[in-house]
Amino acid sequence: MGDAVKSPRARYREQVRDEIKAHAWTQVATTGASALSLNAIAKQMGISGPALYRYFRSRDELITELVLDAYRDLLDTCRAAVKPDDAPEVRLAAMASALRRWALDAPHRYLLIYGTPVPGYAGPPEATTIAAALMTILLDAFAEIDAATGPVPETAADLEDHLAAHRRWAADHPAPPPALRRALRLWTRLHGVVSLEVAGHFTGMNFDPGLLYAAEVDSAIGAP
Amino acid sequence: MGDAVKSPRARYREQVRDEIKAHAWTQVATTGASALSLNAIAKQMGISGPALYRYFRSRDELITELVLDAYRDLLDTCRAAVKPDDAPEVRLAAMASALRRWALDAPHRYLLIYGTPVPGYAGPPEATTIAAALMTILLDAFAEIDAATGPVPETAADLEDHLAAHRRWAADHPAPPPALRRALRLWTRLHGVVSLEVAGHFTGMNFDPGLLYAAEVDSAIGAP
Repeated sequence: MGDAVKSPRARYREQVRDEIKAHAWTQVATTGASALSLNAIAKQMGISGPALYRYFRSRDELITELVLDAYRDLLDTCRAAVKPDDAPEVRLAAMASALRRWALDAPHRYLLIYGTPVPGYAGPPEATTIAAALMTILLDAFAEIDAATGPVPETAADLEDHLAAHRRWAADHPAPPPALRRALRLWTRLHGVVSLEVAGHFTGMNFDPGLLYAAEVDSAIGAP
Repeated sequence: MGDAVKSPRARYREQVRDEIKAHAWTQVATTGASALSLNAIAKQMGISGPALYRYFRSRDELITELVLDAYRDLLDTCRAAVKPDDAPEVRLAAMASALRRWALDAPHRYLLIYGTPVPGYAGPPEATTIAAALMTILLDAFAEIDAATGPVPETAADLEDHLAAHRRWAADHPAPPPALRRALRLWTRLHGVVSLEVAGHFTGMNFDPGLLYAAEVDSAIGAP
């Protein structure tokens, strides 16, 4: 995107679409994604409803753009945080920090992906691809840790046997079962703290969720 | 509630309020909590908007009723699952199973509490009391485990020092810092799996989240 010279018409179209998306993000934050109204956005922009529908054919198409923008931004953020030459433990910790910062920077963006699903809306297949790319960062690192440490004491054998036979989600990643298990474990632990924090459940509890997060990250990376 | 004989008028009022709440739950599931419309409910019930406002003065009052009904039901469910005479580890595992079943039984009910906050809506103070009562079940059990096992290897010392000095959320519970840490840890790990599962993030990943949950429960209860 952005390298080829675009016609004035194409540039204008992109500009209007960006403006619509900016209004949509404001709506997601202030009235909620499930109350997103294309007509309200048209009104704010001083254009007619039908004119707006020339840029986004439906509420769902607009939500899909927001979801994919958010997902791509999260993936870019995580990839930028991870230095390929660092040890796998360092890369995992960097990704974990990046995820939490990203979520706290714009909670409604995190929640559009990981919060309450918008009723009647089905996410796009590209979201699955991006989710898998995020998981790949974890699988790469845990596979590397696994290769370096060799066999570890048997942990959650049921789960590992199951994952060895149910690894479609990991696509063609060659990570061995302990790495599959540890990648999923880190992923759910990160979201366990972040989702409660972002939804305000720690507000008023008077402790620093950052320290809880750090302890969870350490234990999920360090424990076999 | 329900023991004292109520006047026909009071019973009728309660009946109408319950009917309104039933419609509201359907709306939460089908259009989302942030799009909740009292006028739409009035229309469905064949009454006027102003007539409905005699039962709930505002959208927020209605949401509060739903949130508190959900929270109370969760607390009742967890308390019913926990047998006081069981060992603390057994009680914790029972509560964890009850939480996941409760969430999967009615995802929109779980998500109204733990999902995306409704923009512009502030939860009632009673919710904090119920959240603390849920936490008390965990704190009781971990304090008992802590007392039985004695000093454990130093784990997440930063977090424990912090929690020792920031324990307002645990109210007057005498749980020592390791128990505070382990209660919070179990709580976030449960929600880490359940929130992703309920929001559909494991759909299509082709593995059984129940086994991941079981492994997380085991490790959060068993590890120091």
